Amino acid sequence: MLHLQSESTQRWLAQVDAHLDEILIDHAHCERKAATVALSLMNAYTEDRALCTEMTRIVLEELEHFQMVLELLDARGIRFRRLQSGPYGRQLNALVRSQEPHRAVDRLLVAGLIEARSCERFDLLRRHLDDPVLVEFYGGLFESEARHHTTYVRLAEHFASRAEVRERLEQLSSEETAIIAAGSPLPRMHS
Amino acid sequence: MLHLQSESTQRWLAQVDAHLDEILIDHAHCERKAATVALSLMNAYTEDRALCTEMTRIVLEELEHFQMVLELLDARGIRFRRLQSGPYGRQLNALVRSQEPHRAVDRLLVAGLIEARSCERFDLLRRHLDDPVLVEFYGGLFESEARHHTTYVRLAEHFASRAEVRERLEQLSSEETAIIAAGSPLPRMHS
Repeated sequence: MLHLQSESTQRWLAQVDAHLDEILIDHAHCERKAATVALSLMNAYTEDRALCTEMTRIVLEELEHFQMVLELLDARGIRFRRLQSGPYGRQLNALVRSQEPHRAVDRLLVAGLIEARSCERFDLLRRHLDDPVLVEFYGGLFESEARHHTTYVRLAEHFASRAEVRERLEQLSSEETAIIAAGSPLPRMHS
Repeated sequence: MLHLQSESTQRWLAQVDAHLDEILIDHAHCERKAATVALSLMNAYTEDRALCTEMTRIVLEELEHFQMVLELLDARGIRFRRLQSGPYGRQLNALVRSQEPHRAVDRLLVAGLIEARSCERFDLLRRHLDDPVLVEFYGGLFESEARHHTTYVRLAEHFASRAEVRERLEQLSSEETAIIAAGSPLPRMHS
């Protein structure tokens, strides 16, 4: 359903255990960035009415989640601060083709794959963590990431045939698996 | 209260009367762009918690208004389409100083002045137009623009003293008056 070709490994969970505060701060940034991605897609393809409606919905949800993570940080006395970005998003975005309509397809599918990986990791977190507040928190969030994934993949079909979208999704998902397997020493939601 | 140094003239109302559909389409774009400005301010100054909360609120409101204008276009059988931007926003943004913290002050004050001009024009529209649907629509929107204006001016004081903000606001508002007086032949919300 999420079109991912790998599961997150023990390596990442070890990063979570050793740097939970930093992962939570990064999570807040992820929500802010996800809202930004959705809004920039709406700006780029603004004559597509269904896309505008879906992107509006996603921006609202991501910003609501952003505020929820900030409140969670407050409750734990963790100061929200700027973090150096990990390479995951940058490496995925480098795969986006520059010519339209391929560019639209790739931007939507990359956004969809990031949502899918978040979903997979939120599910992992709620099963891995002991903290009941965090378990409930990630349990509440992971469904919306799955929904966003489905929305992005469906919208990609506004710019290419279903078969083309399916083929490209498989290619990008294979790249995503290579990127996430290489990982990053910076402890991040997508390291 | 809005820190504007001029009132809109009959010249603009003549553009409204001659090109109402285009003005309405431009209004939808204005709401989309206003959401984008607020989100990019949140991204730029993300360690300022109060700013994040206020920008989140403004993004949500602007996107809600965006959807409302789209529905209004639908009800009138007007196709939402891309429009060439008028010079107003570009000319105002060219006044933003490049060095921080001046840049933050100017970005916030420019955003605030655009909200102020929208507010002044929405108020004018509700008094000028005969169409009861539009009169009610612009009556409902103009208050939130005034609130956004106040929020942006208040947040500018996070980056400079009240006196500095007041002085810069007066300078920028004087430039805004010159830009809006020069106008643009493209019929737009800020032409």
